[in-house]
Amino acid sequence: MKLLNDTIAKINKPNAEVEQAALERLRNQARPAGSLGILEPISARLAGIAGKIDVRLDRKIIVTCAGDHGVVEEGVSLFPQEVTSQMVYNFVNGGASVSVLANHAGAEVRVADIGVNFDFEPDLPIFHKKVRKGTANFTKGAAMSRDEAVAAIEAGISIANELVKENRPDMIGTGDMGIGNTTPSTAIIAVFSKLPVAELTGRGTGIDDDGLKLKVKVIEKGIEVNQPDASDPIDVLAKVGGLEIGALAGLVIGAAAHGIAVLCDGLISTAGALIACELAPAARAYLFASHRSQEIGHRFMHERMGLDPLIDLEFRLGEGTGAAVAMELLDASTRILADIKTFAEVGIVDAN
Amino acid sequence: MKLLNDTIAKINKPNAEVEQAALERLRNQARPAGSLGILEPISARLAGIAGKIDVRLDRKIIVTCAGDHGVVEEGVSLFPQEVTSQMVYNFVNGGASVSVLANHAGAEVRVADIGVNFDFEPDLPIFHKKVRKGTANFTKGAAMSRDEAVAAIEAGISIANELVKENRPDMIGTGDMGIGNTTPSTAIIAVFSKLPVAELTGRGTGIDDDGLKLKVKVIEKGIEVNQPDASDPIDVLAKVGGLEIGALAGLVIGAAAHGIAVLCDGLISTAGALIACELAPAARAYLFASHRSQEIGHRFMHERMGLDPLIDLEFRLGEGTGAAVAMELLDASTRILADIKTFAEVGIVDAN
Repeated sequence: MKLLNDTIAKINKPNAEVEQAALERLRNQARPAGSLGILEPISARLAGIAGKIDVRLDRKIIVTCAGDHGVVEEGVSLFPQEVTSQMVYNFVNGGASVSVLANHAGAEVRVADIGVNFDFEPDLPIFHKKVRKGTANFTKGAAMSRDEAVAAIEAGISIANELVKENRPDMIGTGDMGIGNTTPSTAIIAVFSKLPVAELTGRGTGIDDDGLKLKVKVIEKGIEVNQPDASDPIDVLAKVGGLEIGALAGLVIGAAAHGIAVLCDGLISTAGALIACELAPAARAYLFASHRSQEIGHRFMHERMGLDPLIDLEFRLGEGTGAAVAMELLDASTRILADIKTFAEVGIVDAN
Repeated sequence: MKLLNDTIAKINKPNAEVEQAALERLRNQARPAGSLGILEPISARLAGIAGKIDVRLDRKIIVTCAGDHGVVEEGVSLFPQEVTSQMVYNFVNGGASVSVLANHAGAEVRVADIGVNFDFEPDLPIFHKKVRKGTANFTKGAAMSRDEAVAAIEAGISIANELVKENRPDMIGTGDMGIGNTTPSTAIIAVFSKLPVAELTGRGTGIDDDGLKLKVKVIEKGIEVNQPDASDPIDVLAKVGGLEIGALAGLVIGAAAHGIAVLCDGLISTAGALIACELAPAARAYLFASHRSQEIGHRFMHERMGLDPLIDLEFRLGEGTGAAVAMELLDASTRILADIKTFAEVGIVDAN
């Protein structure tokens, strides 16, 4: 708990003067005022975070956190649990969706085992941060203990710290892998929003109508059995969350404490970001939402944090795929701010 | 008219077998079926166009077509007409918005003078295709003659031909520059859709409420005075269109005839694409919509062509800026199709 508390205490505000100077430069560029839409305030915030106008997102890392879920025994996913560990190897070998899209975005994918129900070789090039081998089935009690929830968050913080120690990243994207993990993620937003579970639940990897009804019941039961306390984010994470979701929260808190922008991916990554912002509201200033996924709970998470996703390409995959694509747009926004000439620089009269 | 007719006659269908094989490969990739949303059918269409699964969009060109508009004397724009020629120099010097975003996307910007009211130096590195020095004020008669409209379209076709002769591009993006050109673009969609002008008209570079009312009246007057024939796209272009809009139509037709994918930008580029598809419906198969702009007429153009824009970043700039950003997503889609491994390739059982 000490690492978590110390890290939250370290989060400073982005540099407001630089952000203002950036907004001023954007207004003076040789184009109609505001004509580059939402990329303008984003570029200004990135400048405030970096403390300079000419931001370079050279070192971009996507951290894909993996964990298993006891609740899959209730039949909430199309895929068997073994796929979580199999996909970890697919990430490491570079053939997965996030590998391909991160490569296109000039980003590196780093995989973290937070709670996969599998023994990976100790020399597999991943962050070995296993807290336990998958959560317990939350329809029968808490998914994990409170100590394990804190350990999962601190695993994410320690990954941020290790990445900075290696070579400070300019941006961290989040991603997830864990068969069944739209179920705890939906439970988390249901607890915080107090909205009916049926209004928040999506089809995950592609379950049918009967599967969807079952999933709603499973989530409702998990909340009923555990009675998570919405005013205590660690309690919510422990009772109906997931190990990788805890680490995804920790990554956001850790990145914010280091003053690094963090871009969250789909439903699961955003569930982690939500836990982070409930624990440490100051982290919100460093957080960007990449995309709106097809999972219907996602929009309620964004609304609660006041985040406006950049894109909606009808993705519903996770892994960090949406973060990878959106990273290219954040990168483009830094060039808008720094490189487009002002009216004065090109000798055109400003009619704005 | 011969070049136009000959070019339309040359448009073939994309390779349907390759497109089907691409869709099959996407379905077999190690991820939930359909989970990469709209990038999947886009990647398959790009494969059909290229005739192969591993599409490489190495040579990407954005052609920014410039022209002036007599109708600006009615006060429809915030900016004076001289800004059109000044911005041409800004494009050539690489300091404009499209220059910066194209550079980020790995694309080259080529500028074309189709009808700027300015004498450029003959050695300025642009396509010198001036048909006339700006259109006439369409509230007082046709914007241009029928012959000039055909010449503007053929200028766009000749640019596509010259680009292919230089070094065949893998993708062409369209862009525009022309003070006042949201006015003719809105007139064009009003004629084709027969919807009330007031429901289609936006603020262009940023006019206020009074300016917007005036702009609606100007467009209504232009349509009333000229009575363009919606069944004759060249008549529509000549009477209420623009010279650069004609060239933008020609670029789409020319690209399609060469079997090259073409990505259209904002309201003005899409007005050109609309003229192209009305003249040559077969061109539609090669056309992609980059973004939905803040200009309200834009969505009606997309609807008429059955195009679904990739992004909505609240842009309202033109120049090719939306095309530049969306090009990165089309490029990413080609990697999705070719590089993500299938279930069989990574040894995971397909539960889809």
